[in-house]
Amino acid sequence: MKEQITEWFKSLQDSICIAIEHEDGKGKFEEDNWLREEGGGGRTRILQSGNVIEKGGVNFSAVHGDVPDFLMKENPVSNSEKNTFYATGVSIVIHPHNPMVPIIHMNVRYFEMSNGAWWFGGGIDLTPHYVNEEDAVFFHSSLKTACDKHNTNYYPDFKKWADDYFFITHRKETRGIGGIFFDKLSQTTNCTKEQLFAFVQEIGNSFAPAYTSLMNKNKNLRYTEDNKQWQLLRRGRYVEFNLVYDKGTKFGLETNGRVESILMSLPSTAGWFYNYTPTPNSPEEKTLSFLKKGINWA
Amino acid sequence: MKEQITEWFKSLQDSICIAIEHEDGKGKFEEDNWLREEGGGGRTRILQSGNVIEKGGVNFSAVHGDVPDFLMKENPVSNSEKNTFYATGVSIVIHPHNPMVPIIHMNVRYFEMSNGAWWFGGGIDLTPHYVNEEDAVFFHSSLKTACDKHNTNYYPDFKKWADDYFFITHRKETRGIGGIFFDKLSQTTNCTKEQLFAFVQEIGNSFAPAYTSLMNKNKNLRYTEDNKQWQLLRRGRYVEFNLVYDKGTKFGLETNGRVESILMSLPSTAGWFYNYTPTPNSPEEKTLSFLKKGINWA
Repeated sequence: MKEQITEWFKSLQDSICIAIEHEDGKGKFEEDNWLREEGGGGRTRILQSGNVIEKGGVNFSAVHGDVPDFLMKENPVSNSEKNTFYATGVSIVIHPHNPMVPIIHMNVRYFEMSNGAWWFGGGIDLTPHYVNEEDAVFFHSSLKTACDKHNTNYYPDFKKWADDYFFITHRKETRGIGGIFFDKLSQTTNCTKEQLFAFVQEIGNSFAPAYTSLMNKNKNLRYTEDNKQWQLLRRGRYVEFNLVYDKGTKFGLETNGRVESILMSLPSTAGWFYNYTPTPNSPEEKTLSFLKKGINWA
Repeated sequence: MKEQITEWFKSLQDSICIAIEHEDGKGKFEEDNWLREEGGGGRTRILQSGNVIEKGGVNFSAVHGDVPDFLMKENPVSNSEKNTFYATGVSIVIHPHNPMVPIIHMNVRYFEMSNGAWWFGGGIDLTPHYVNEEDAVFFHSSLKTACDKHNTNYYPDFKKWADDYFFITHRKETRGIGGIFFDKLSQTTNCTKEQLFAFVQEIGNSFAPAYTSLMNKNKNLRYTEDNKQWQLLRRGRYVEFNLVYDKGTKFGLETNGRVESILMSLPSTAGWFYNYTPTPNSPEEKTLSFLKKGINWA
Protein backbone atom coordinates (compact mmCIF):
# COMPACT_ATOMS: atom_id res chain seq x y z
CA MET A 1 0.00 0.00 0.00
CA LYS A 2 2.95 2.34 0.44
CA GLU A 3 3.20 2.72 -3.35
CA GLN A 4 -0.42 3.85 -3.49
CA ILE A 5 0.13 6.35 -0.68
CA THR A 6 3.31 7.62 -2.32
CA GLU A 7 1.60 8.13 -5.67
CA TRP A 8 -1.25 9.96 -4.04
CA PHE A 9 1.16 12.35 -2.26
CA LYS A 10 2.75 13.10 -5.63
CA SER A 11 -0.62 13.88 -7.14
CA LEU A 12 -1.44 16.09 -4.15
CA GLN A 13 1.74 18.06 -4.79
CA ASP A 14 0.70 18.49 -8.43
CA SER A 15 -2.80 19.68 -7.71
CA ILE A 16 -1.73 22.13 -4.99
CA CYS A 17 0.96 23.65 -7.19
CA ILE A 18 -1.57 24.19 -10.00
CA ALA A 19 -4.08 25.82 -7.66
CA ILE A 20 -1.52 28.15 -6.12
CA GLU A 21 0.02 29.20 -9.41
CA HIS A 22 -3.47 29.95 -10.69
CA GLU A 23 -4.33 32.16 -7.72
CA ASP A 24 -0.92 33.84 -7.75
CA GLY A 25 -1.27 34.70 -11.44
CA LYS A 26 2.44 35.15 -12.09
CA GLY A 27 4.76 32.89 -10.08
CA LYS A 28 5.73 29.46 -11.35
CA PHE A 29 7.06 26.59 -9.28
CA GLU A 30 10.58 25.53 -10.21
CA GLU A 31 11.27 21.85 -9.67
CA ASP A 32 14.42 20.25 -8.27
CA ASN A 33 14.64 16.50 -8.16
CA TRP A 34 17.10 15.17 -5.63
CA LEU A 35 18.39 11.83 -4.40
CA ARG A 36 19.28 10.98 -0.82
CA GLU A 37 22.57 9.13 -0.49
CA GLU A 38 21.17 6.63 2.00
CA GLY A 39 18.04 5.95 -0.07
CA GLY A 40 15.15 7.70 -1.77
CA GLY A 41 14.81 11.35 -2.65
CA GLY A 42 12.32 14.03 -3.44
CA ARG A 43 10.73 16.53 -5.75
CA THR A 44 11.16 20.03 -4.38
CA ARG A 45 9.06 22.78 -5.92
CA ILE A 46 9.76 26.39 -5.05
CA LEU A 47 7.92 29.50 -6.19
CA GLN A 48 9.73 32.80 -5.65
CA SER A 49 8.74 36.37 -6.48
CA GLY A 50 5.17 35.74 -7.53
CA ASN A 51 2.39 38.31 -7.48
CA VAL A 52 1.10 37.18 -4.10
CA ILE A 53 3.76 34.75 -2.93
CA GLU A 54 7.23 35.93 -2.04
CA LYS A 55 8.59 32.45 -1.33
CA GLY A 56 6.77 29.18 -1.14
CA GLY A 57 7.67 25.51 -1.24
CA VAL A 58 5.46 22.53 -2.01
CA ASN A 59 7.70 19.53 -1.51
CA PHE A 60 7.24 15.83 -2.01
CA SER A 61 9.70 13.28 -0.68
CA ALA A 62 9.99 9.53 -0.22
CA VAL A 63 13.06 8.40 1.67
CA HIS A 64 14.18 5.10 3.14
CA GLY A 65 17.12 3.55 4.92
CA ASP A 66 18.26 2.38 8.32
CA VAL A 67 16.19 3.75 11.17
CA PRO A 68 18.17 6.62 12.75
CA ASP A 69 19.41 6.04 16.29
CA PHE A 70 17.17 8.67 17.86
CA LEU A 71 14.10 6.96 16.37
CA MET A 72 15.28 3.50 17.43
CA LYS A 73 15.32 4.77 21.01
CA GLU A 74 11.71 5.93 20.71
CA ASN A 75 10.63 2.70 19.03
CA PRO A 76 12.71 -0.14 20.47
CA VAL A 77 12.38 -3.45 18.67
CA SER A 78 12.82 -6.83 20.24
CA ASN A 79 15.12 -8.36 17.67
CA SER A 80 18.61 -7.06 17.21
CA GLU A 81 18.63 -6.84 13.43
CA LYS A 82 18.91 -3.42 11.85
CA ASN A 83 15.50 -1.94 11.28
CA THR A 84 14.75 0.02 8.12
CA PHE A 85 12.19 2.76 7.49
CA TYR A 86 10.22 4.26 4.64
CA ALA A 87 8.84 7.78 4.94
CA THR A 88 6.88 9.76 2.38
CA GLY A 89 4.91 12.97 2.48
CA VAL A 90 4.18 16.44 1.28
CA SER A 91 5.42 19.55 3.11
CA ILE A 92 4.30 23.06 2.35
CA VAL A 93 5.21 26.49 3.67
CA ILE A 94 4.12 29.68 1.91
CA HIS A 95 5.29 33.19 2.74
CA PRO A 96 3.31 35.94 0.96
CA HIS A 97 4.54 39.47 0.15
CA ASN A 98 1.55 41.24 1.62
CA PRO A 99 1.49 41.18 5.43
CA MET A 100 -2.31 41.01 5.27
CA VAL A 101 -2.07 37.54 3.67
CA PRO A 102 -1.25 34.82 6.22
CA ILE A 103 1.66 32.39 6.14
CA ILE A 104 0.48 28.79 5.83
CA HIS A 105 2.01 25.40 6.52
CA MET A 106 0.83 21.88 5.84
CA ASN A 107 2.51 18.53 6.19
CA VAL A 108 1.00 15.11 5.54
CA ARG A 109 3.16 12.04 5.92
CA TYR A 110 3.28 8.27 6.12
CA PHE A 111 5.97 6.31 7.93
CA GLU A 112 6.62 2.59 8.16
CA MET A 113 9.35 0.39 9.56
CA SER A 114 10.50 -3.06 8.55
CA ASN A 115 9.31 -4.41 11.91
CA GLY A 116 5.72 -3.81 10.76
CA ALA A 117 5.03 -0.54 12.59
CA TRP A 118 3.36 2.17 10.49
CA TRP A 119 1.61 5.46 11.06
CA PHE A 120 0.23 8.58 9.46
CA GLY A 121 0.94 12.07 10.68
CA GLY A 122 0.22 15.57 9.59
CA GLY A 123 -0.75 19.07 10.41
CA ILE A 124 -1.92 22.31 8.93
CA ASP A 125 -1.68 25.66 10.63
CA LEU A 126 -2.15 29.29 9.74
CA THR A 127 0.15 32.13 10.80
CA PRO A 128 -1.45 35.49 10.06
CA HIS A 129 0.86 38.47 10.51
CA TYR A 130 -2.33 40.23 11.57
CA VAL A 131 -5.07 38.03 12.97
CA ASN A 132 -8.36 38.61 11.16
CA GLU A 133 -11.11 36.93 13.13
CA GLU A 134 -13.29 36.23 10.11
CA ASP A 135 -10.40 34.47 8.38
CA ALA A 136 -9.57 32.51 11.53
CA VAL A 137 -13.15 31.26 11.82
CA PHE A 138 -13.20 30.36 8.12
CA PHE A 139 -9.90 28.46 8.35
CA HIS A 140 -10.78 26.48 11.46
CA SER A 141 -14.28 25.77 10.20
CA SER A 142 -12.94 24.33 6.97
CA LEU A 143 -10.65 22.04 8.99
CA LYS A 144 -13.49 21.03 11.27
CA THR A 145 -15.68 20.17 8.28
CA ALA A 146 -12.94 17.97 6.84
CA CYS A 147 -12.30 16.26 10.20
CA ASP A 148 -15.97 15.72 11.04
CA LYS A 149 -16.50 13.62 7.93
CA HIS A 150 -14.22 11.02 9.52
CA ASN A 151 -14.56 11.30 13.27
CA THR A 152 -16.12 14.10 15.30
CA ASN A 153 -13.39 13.74 17.92
CA TYR A 154 -10.68 14.54 15.39
CA TYR A 155 -11.14 18.30 15.20
CA PRO A 156 -11.23 19.00 18.96
CA ASP A 157 -8.42 16.52 19.67
CA PHE A 158 -6.16 17.58 16.81
CA LYS A 159 -6.89 21.28 17.33
CA LYS A 160 -5.66 20.98 20.90
CA TRP A 161 -2.64 19.01 19.67
CA ALA A 162 -1.84 21.86 17.25
CA ASP A 163 -2.15 24.45 20.03
CA ASP A 164 0.41 22.48 22.02
CA TYR A 165 2.68 21.69 19.08
CA PHE A 166 2.87 25.06 17.32
CA PHE A 167 3.93 26.79 20.52
CA ILE A 168 7.06 28.91 20.93
CA THR A 169 7.80 28.00 24.53
CA HIS A 170 10.43 30.66 25.18
CA ARG A 171 8.10 33.39 23.84
CA LYS A 172 5.07 31.95 25.62
CA GLU A 173 3.07 32.45 22.43
CA THR A 174 1.63 30.24 19.72
CA ARG A 175 3.16 30.50 16.24
CA GLY A 176 -0.13 31.66 14.78
CA ILE A 177 -3.79 30.72 15.16
CA GLY A 178 -3.06 27.00 14.99
CA GLY A 179 -5.07 24.46 13.04
CA ILE A 180 -4.75 20.73 13.50
CA PHE A 181 -1.84 18.42 14.25
CA PHE A 182 -1.78 14.64 14.54
CA ASP A 183 0.92 11.99 14.68
CA LYS A 184 1.34 8.23 14.87
CA LEU A 185 -2.19 7.46 13.74
CA SER A 186 -2.09 3.69 13.28
CA GLN A 187 -4.16 0.58 13.97
CA THR A 188 -4.19 1.56 17.64
CA THR A 189 -6.90 4.12 16.72
CA ASN A 190 -9.22 1.19 15.81
CA CYS A 191 -9.18 2.46 12.23
CA THR A 192 -7.83 0.57 9.27
CA LYS A 193 -4.94 1.93 7.26
CA GLU A 194 -7.44 2.66 4.47
CA GLN A 195 -9.63 4.72 6.77
CA LEU A 196 -6.70 6.74 8.09
CA PHE A 197 -5.40 7.25 4.58
CA ALA A 198 -8.83 8.57 3.54
CA PHE A 199 -8.68 11.05 6.42
CA VAL A 200 -5.21 12.23 5.44
CA GLN A 201 -6.41 12.65 1.85
CA GLU A 202 -9.34 14.73 3.09
CA ILE A 203 -6.97 17.05 4.95
CA GLY A 204 -4.58 17.25 2.01
CA ASN A 205 -7.42 18.11 -0.34
CA SER A 206 -8.71 20.82 1.97
CA PHE A 207 -5.50 22.83 1.70
CA ALA A 208 -5.77 24.45 -1.73
CA PRO A 209 -9.38 25.69 -1.50
CA ALA A 210 -8.79 27.15 1.98
CA TYR A 211 -5.53 28.92 1.21
CA THR A 212 -6.37 30.19 -2.26
CA SER A 213 -9.51 31.67 -0.76
CA LEU A 214 -7.44 33.53 1.86
CA MET A 215 -4.98 34.67 -0.80
CA ASN A 216 -7.81 35.96 -2.96
CA LYS A 217 -9.60 37.76 -0.15
CA ASN A 218 -6.53 39.57 1.21
CA LYS A 219 -4.01 39.96 -1.59
CA ASN A 220 -5.14 43.43 -2.63
CA LEU A 221 -5.37 44.92 0.86
CA ARG A 222 -3.17 47.97 1.36
CA TYR A 223 -0.36 48.00 3.84
CA THR A 224 2.23 50.38 5.27
CA GLU A 225 5.94 50.26 5.94
CA ASP A 226 5.11 49.65 9.62
CA ASN A 227 3.07 46.61 8.59
CA LYS A 228 6.12 45.30 6.69
CA GLN A 229 8.32 45.79 9.76
CA TRP A 230 5.86 43.82 11.87
CA GLN A 231 5.82 41.11 9.19
CA LEU A 232 9.62 40.84 9.55
CA LEU A 233 9.24 40.36 13.29
CA ARG A 234 6.51 37.71 12.90
CA ARG A 235 8.70 35.94 10.34
CA GLY A 236 11.51 36.02 12.91
CA ARG A 237 9.24 34.16 15.33
CA TYR A 238 8.47 31.67 12.55
CA VAL A 239 12.21 31.07 12.13
CA GLU A 240 12.57 30.59 15.89
CA PHE A 241 9.83 27.97 15.94
CA ASN A 242 11.15 26.07 12.94
CA LEU A 243 14.78 25.98 14.05
CA VAL A 244 14.24 25.42 17.78
CA TYR A 245 11.12 23.25 18.03
CA ASP A 246 9.88 21.81 14.74
CA LYS A 247 10.23 18.04 14.71
CA GLY A 248 10.07 17.78 10.92
CA THR A 249 13.01 20.15 10.57
CA LYS A 250 14.92 18.24 13.25
CA PHE A 251 14.15 14.88 11.62
CA GLY A 252 15.23 16.20 8.23
CA LEU A 253 18.50 17.68 9.44
CA GLU A 254 19.34 14.61 11.55
CA THR A 255 18.63 12.12 8.77
CA ASN A 256 20.87 13.96 6.32
CA GLY A 257 17.91 15.27 4.36
CA ARG A 258 18.35 17.87 1.62
CA VAL A 259 19.00 21.07 3.55
CA GLU A 260 17.62 23.43 0.89
CA SER A 261 14.37 21.47 0.79
CA ILE A 262 14.01 21.35 4.57
CA LEU A 263 14.85 25.01 5.11
CA MET A 264 12.66 26.27 2.28
CA SER A 265 10.27 26.88 5.20
CA LEU A 266 12.34 29.94 6.20
CA PRO A 267 11.22 33.29 4.80
CA SER A 268 13.19 35.41 2.29
CA THR A 269 13.70 37.95 5.05
CA ALA A 270 13.10 38.02 8.79
CA GLY A 271 13.90 40.46 11.56
CA TRP A 272 14.63 40.78 15.25
CA PHE A 273 14.17 44.08 17.05
CA TYR A 274 15.33 44.20 20.64
CA ASN A 275 12.49 44.22 23.16
CA TYR A 276 9.76 45.15 20.70
CA THR A 277 6.60 46.25 22.50
CA PRO A 278 3.45 46.94 20.51
CA THR A 279 1.60 50.24 20.85
CA PRO A 280 -1.42 49.88 23.16
CA ASN A 281 -4.64 49.12 21.27
CA SER A 282 -2.77 48.66 18.00
CA PRO A 283 -3.48 45.85 15.49
CA GLU A 284 -0.12 44.38 16.54
CA GLU A 285 -1.18 44.21 20.18
CA LYS A 286 -4.52 42.71 19.17
CA THR A 287 -2.72 40.03 17.15
CA LEU A 288 -0.50 39.14 20.12
CA SER A 289 -3.62 38.71 22.26
CA PHE A 290 -4.75 35.94 19.88
CA LEU A 291 -1.44 34.05 19.98
CA LYS A 292 -2.43 31.75 22.79
CA LYS A 293 -3.77 28.27 23.26
CA GLY A 294 -7.39 27.27 23.64
CA ILE A 295 -9.21 29.83 21.49
CA ASN A 296 -12.33 28.24 20.04
CA TRP A 297 -12.45 29.53 16.46
CA ALA A 298 -14.65 26.97 14.72
CA MET B 1 36.14 34.34 44.97
CA LYS B 2 32.92 34.32 42.94
CA GLU B 3 32.25 37.92 44.04
CA GLN B 4 35.62 38.99 42.68
CA ILE B 5 34.98 37.23 39.38
CA THR B 6 31.50 38.72 39.16
CA GLU B 7 32.77 42.24 39.77
CA TRP B 8 35.45 41.83 37.16
CA PHE B 9 32.92 40.69 34.56
CA LYS B 10 30.88 43.82 35.29
CA SER B 11 33.94 46.01 34.81
CA LEU B 12 34.71 44.18 31.55
CA GLN B 13 31.20 44.99 30.31
CA ASP B 14 31.81 48.64 31.18
CA SER B 15 35.15 48.95 29.44
CA ILE B 16 34.00 47.15 26.28
CA CYS B 17 30.90 49.35 25.99
CA ILE B 18 33.00 52.49 26.28
CA ALA B 19 35.49 51.31 23.64
CA ILE B 20 32.76 50.34 21.18
CA GLU B 21 30.77 53.53 21.63
CA HIS B 22 33.94 55.50 21.06
CA GLU B 23 34.75 53.71 17.81
CA ASP B 24 31.15 53.83 16.63
CA GLY B 25 30.99 57.58 17.19
CA LYS B 26 27.20 57.79 17.40
CA GLY B 27 25.47 54.78 18.95
CA LYS B 28 24.90 54.56 22.70
CA PHE B 29 24.24 51.41 24.68
CA GLU B 30 20.85 51.35 26.38
CA GLU B 31 20.77 49.41 29.64
CA ASP B 32 18.06 47.08 30.89
CA ASN B 33 18.42 45.57 34.35
CA TRP B 34 16.47 42.41 34.85
CA LEU B 35 15.82 39.88 37.59
CA ARG B 36 15.44 36.16 37.14
CA GLU B 37 12.51 34.70 39.02
CA GLU B 38 14.52 31.72 40.24
CA GLY B 39 17.49 33.84 41.33
CA GLY B 40 19.89 36.47 40.08
CA GLY B 41 19.60 38.64 37.03
CA GLY B 42 21.56 40.70 34.60
CA ARG B 43 22.51 43.97 33.00
CA THR B 44 21.69 43.90 29.29
CA ARG B 45 23.18 46.64 27.13
CA ILE B 46 22.03 47.03 23.55
CA LEU B 47 23.26 49.48 20.93
CA GLN B 48 21.04 49.92 17.88
CA SER B 49 21.39 52.12 14.80
CA GLY B 50 24.89 53.40 15.42
CA ASN B 51 27.23 54.70 12.74
CA VAL B 52 29.01 51.38 12.39
CA ILE B 53 26.90 49.01 14.46
CA GLU B 54 23.39 48.11 13.38
CA LYS B 55 22.65 46.00 16.45
CA GLY B 56 24.95 44.90 19.21
CA GLY B 57 24.62 43.53 22.70
CA VAL B 58 27.16 43.48 25.51
CA ASN B 59 25.46 41.60 28.32
CA PHE B 60 26.43 40.80 31.87
CA SER B 61 24.52 38.30 33.98
CA ALA B 62 24.87 36.48 37.29
CA VAL B 63 22.21 33.87 37.93
CA HIS B 64 21.76 31.17 40.53
CA GLY B 65 19.28 28.52 41.59
CA ASP B 66 18.69 24.81 41.52
CA VAL B 67 20.83 22.98 38.99
CA PRO B 68 18.61 22.26 35.95
CA ASP B 69 17.84 18.60 35.28
CA PHE B 70 19.80 18.44 32.03
CA LEU B 71 22.93 19.67 33.87
CA MET B 72 22.41 17.25 36.76
CA LYS B 73 22.53 14.41 34.22
CA GLU B 74 25.88 15.65 32.92
CA ASN B 75 27.26 16.22 36.44
CA PRO B 76 25.81 13.55 38.73
CA VAL B 77 26.45 14.07 42.43
CA SER B 78 26.68 11.35 45.01
CA ASN B 79 24.41 12.84 47.63
CA SER B 80 20.73 13.18 46.97
CA GLU B 81 20.26 16.74 48.17
CA LYS B 82 19.30 19.36 45.62
CA ASN B 83 22.36 20.95 44.09
CA THR B 84 22.47 24.68 43.40
CA PHE B 85 24.52 26.61 40.85
CA TYR B 86 25.94 30.06 40.34
CA ALA B 87 26.79 31.27 36.83
CA THR B 88 28.15 34.63 35.78
CA GLY B 89 29.62 35.99 32.58
CA VAL B 90 29.67 38.46 29.75
CA SER B 91 28.17 37.71 26.33
CA ILE B 92 28.66 39.84 23.27
CA VAL B 93 27.39 39.74 19.70
CA ILE B 94 27.79 42.66 17.33
CA HIS B 95 26.21 43.01 13.89
CA PRO B 96 27.54 45.95 11.85
CA HIS B 97 25.73 47.76 9.02
CA ASN B 98 28.58 47.53 6.52
CA PRO B 99 29.01 43.99 5.14
CA MET B 100 32.76 44.65 4.98
CA VAL B 101 32.87 44.82 8.79
CA PRO B 102 32.76 41.37 10.42
CA ILE B 103 30.25 40.12 12.99
CA ILE B 104 31.91 39.28 16.29
CA HIS B 105 30.98 37.20 19.31
CA MET B 106 32.60 36.72 22.68
CA ASN B 107 31.51 34.94 25.81
CA VAL B 108 33.45 34.52 29.04
CA ARG B 109 31.83 32.76 31.96
CA TYR B 110 32.30 31.20 35.36
CA PHE B 111 30.14 28.43 36.78
CA GLU B 112 30.10 26.76 40.18
CA MET B 113 27.90 24.27 41.98
CA SER B 114 27.18 23.80 45.67
CA ASN B 115 28.88 20.41 45.51
CA GLY B 116 32.20 22.21 44.99
CA ALA B 117 32.56 21.80 41.23
CA TRP B 118 33.59 24.97 39.35
CA TRP B 119 34.88 25.88 35.94
CA PHE B 120 35.58 28.69 33.51
CA GLY B 121 34.47 28.72 29.90
CA GLY B 122 34.57 31.11 27.02
CA GLY B 123 35.02 31.74 23.38
CA ILE B 124 35.56 34.44 20.85
CA ASP B 125 34.98 34.06 17.15
CA LEU B 126 34.80 36.27 14.09
CA THR B 127 32.23 35.96 11.31
CA PRO B 128 33.23 38.11 8.34
CA HIS B 129 30.56 38.43 5.66
CA TYR B 130 33.55 38.57 3.32
CA VAL B 131 36.71 36.88 4.53
CA ASN B 132 39.66 39.24 4.35
CA GLU B 133 42.83 37.24 4.85
CA GLU B 134 44.77 40.09 6.43
CA ASP B 135 42.02 40.61 9.00
CA ALA B 136 41.82 36.89 9.69
CA VAL B 137 45.55 36.71 10.37
CA PHE B 138 45.35 39.80 12.60
CA PHE B 139 42.42 38.41 14.60
CA HIS B 140 43.91 34.96 15.15
CA SER B 141 47.35 36.37 15.91
CA SER B 142 45.91 38.62 18.62
CA LEU B 143 44.21 35.60 20.19
CA LYS B 144 47.39 33.56 19.95
CA THR B 145 49.36 36.33 21.65
CA ALA B 146 46.87 36.44 24.51
CA CYS B 147 46.83 32.64 24.88
CA ASP B 148 50.60 32.23 24.69
CA LYS B 149 51.12 34.41 27.75
CA HIS B 150 49.43 31.66 29.78
CA ASN B 151 50.10 28.36 28.04
CA THR B 152 51.41 27.73 24.54
CA ASN B 153 49.05 24.81 24.18
CA TYR B 154 46.00 27.01 24.67
CA TYR B 155 45.88 28.60 21.24
CA PRO B 156 46.24 25.41 19.16
CA ASP B 157 43.92 23.45 21.47
CA PHE B 158 41.25 26.12 21.80
CA LYS B 159 41.45 27.11 18.12
CA LYS B 160 40.64 23.50 17.16
CA TRP B 161 37.85 23.48 19.76
CA ALA B 162 36.39 26.61 18.13
CA ASP B 163 36.58 25.04 14.66
CA ASP B 164 34.57 22.11 15.98
CA TYR B 165 32.16 24.19 18.05
CA PHE B 166 31.30 27.00 15.62
CA PHE B 167 30.30 24.54 12.92
CA ILE B 168 26.96 24.47 11.13
CA THR B 169 26.74 20.71 10.68
CA HIS B 170 23.81 20.68 8.25
CA ARG B 171 25.54 23.26 6.01
CA LYS B 172 28.92 21.55 6.34
CA GLU B 173 30.49 24.95 6.90
CA THR B 174 31.97 26.87 9.82
CA ARG B 175 30.08 29.93 11.05
CA GLY B 176 32.99 32.19 10.22
CA ILE B 177 36.76 32.02 10.55
CA GLY B 178 36.60 30.72 14.13
CA GLY B 179 38.75 31.91 16.98
CA ILE B 180 39.05 30.09 20.29
CA PHE B 181 36.62 28.13 22.44
CA PHE B 182 37.15 26.46 25.80
CA ASP B 183 34.91 25.01 28.47
CA LYS B 184 35.08 23.40 31.89
CA LEU B 185 38.56 24.69 32.67
CA SER B 186 38.99 23.75 36.33
CA GLN B 187 41.56 22.30 38.71
CA THR B 188 41.84 19.27 36.40
CA THR B 189 44.02 21.46 34.14
CA ASN B 190 46.66 21.59 36.95
CA CYS B 191 46.06 25.34 37.14
CA THR B 192 44.72 27.19 40.12
CA LYS B 193 41.47 29.08 39.94
CA GLU B 194 43.52 32.28 40.06
CA GLN B 195 45.60 31.24 37.06
CA LEU B 196 42.54 30.32 35.01
CA PHE B 197 40.82 33.54 35.99
CA ALA B 198 43.88 35.47 34.82
CA PHE B 199 43.67 33.71 31.46
CA VAL B 200 39.97 34.51 31.11
CA GLN B 201 40.73 38.14 31.95
CA GLU B 202 43.42 38.20 29.27
CA ILE B 203 40.93 36.97 26.68
CA GLY B 204 38.25 39.39 27.84
CA ASN B 205 40.66 42.29 27.64
CA SER B 206 41.77 41.33 24.14
CA PHE B 207 38.27 41.82 22.74
CA ALA B 208 37.96 45.59 22.50
CA PRO B 209 41.33 46.39 20.90
CA ALA B 210 40.88 43.62 18.32
CA TYR B 211 37.32 44.47 17.31
CA THR B 212 37.61 48.26 17.35
CA SER B 213 40.62 47.88 15.10
CA LEU B 214 38.58 45.82 12.63
CA MET B 215 35.72 48.35 12.83
CA ASN B 216 38.09 51.20 12.17
CA LYS B 217 39.86 49.52 9.27
CA ASN B 218 36.71 48.49 7.41
CA LYS B 219 33.89 50.82 8.36
CA ASN B 220 34.36 53.21 5.43
CA LEU B 221 34.74 50.58 2.73
CA ARG B 222 32.18 50.88 -0.06
CA TYR B 223 29.65 48.19 -0.74
CA THR B 224 26.90 47.36 -3.20
CA GLU B 225 23.32 46.16 -2.97
CA ASP B 226 24.62 42.67 -3.89
CA ASN B 227 26.98 42.83 -0.90
CA LYS B 228 23.99 43.64 1.34
CA GLN B 229 22.07 40.65 -0.05
CA TRP B 230 24.99 38.37 0.71
CA GLN B 231 25.16 39.87 4.21
CA LEU B 232 21.50 38.89 4.71
CA LEU B 233 22.32 35.33 3.70
CA ARG B 234 25.34 35.12 6.01
CA ARG B 235 23.22 36.51 8.83
CA GLY B 236 20.69 33.77 8.08
CA ARG B 237 23.45 31.22 8.64
CA TYR B 238 24.30 32.97 11.90
CA VAL B 239 20.67 32.57 13.00
CA GLU B 240 20.78 28.89 12.05
CA PHE B 241 23.87 28.30 14.18
CA ASN B 242 22.55 30.16 17.19
CA LEU B 243 19.10 28.58 17.21
CA VAL B 244 20.10 25.02 16.25
CA TYR B 245 23.52 24.48 17.84
CA ASP B 246 24.62 27.16 20.27
CA LYS B 247 24.83 25.77 23.80
CA GLY B 248 24.66 29.18 25.47
CA THR B 249 21.37 29.92 23.72
CA LYS B 250 20.05 26.49 24.65
CA PHE B 251 21.15 26.89 28.28
CA GLY B 252 19.54 30.31 28.46
CA LEU B 253 16.22 29.24 26.98
CA GLU B 254 16.08 26.06 29.09
CA THR B 255 16.87 27.83 32.37
CA ASN B 256 14.14 30.43 31.85
CA GLY B 257 16.66 33.14 31.05
CA ARG B 258 15.54 36.53 29.75
CA VAL B 259 14.62 35.83 26.13
CA GLU B 260 15.35 39.33 24.81
CA SER B 261 18.84 39.20 26.34
CA ILE B 262 19.59 35.74 24.99
CA LEU B 263 18.28 36.43 21.50
CA MET B 264 19.96 39.81 21.19
CA SER B 265 22.50 37.69 19.26
CA LEU B 266 20.11 37.59 16.30
CA PRO B 267 20.57 40.27 13.63
CA SER B 268 18.06 43.04 12.83
CA THR B 269 17.44 41.35 9.49
CA ALA B 270 18.42 38.02 7.95
CA GLY B 271 17.56 36.25 4.73
CA TRP B 272 17.16 32.87 3.11
CA PHE B 273 17.29 32.48 -0.66
CA TYR B 274 16.49 29.04 -2.01
CA ASN B 275 19.52 27.16 -3.27
CA TYR B 276 21.83 30.16 -3.47
CA THR B 277 24.94 29.38 -5.47
CA PRO B 278 27.77 31.92 -5.67
CA THR B 279 29.11 33.08 -9.02
CA PRO B 280 32.37 31.28 -9.88
CA ASN B 281 35.47 33.23 -8.78
CA SER B 282 33.36 35.78 -6.91
CA PRO B 283 34.22 37.18 -3.47
CA GLU B 284 31.25 35.18 -2.16
CA GLU B 285 32.69 31.93 -3.50
CA LYS B 286 36.09 32.80 -2.07
CA THR B 287 34.52 33.43 1.34
CA LEU B 288 32.77 30.05 1.25
CA SER B 289 36.10 28.38 0.51
CA PHE B 290 37.39 29.74 3.85
CA LEU B 291 34.45 28.47 5.90
CA LYS B 292 36.05 25.20 6.85
CA LYS B 293 37.93 23.70 9.75
CA GLY B 294 41.67 23.51 10.15
CA ILE B 295 42.86 26.71 8.43
CA ASN B 296 46.02 27.93 10.13
CA TRP B 297 45.59 31.72 10.29
CA ALA B 298 47.97 32.69 13.08
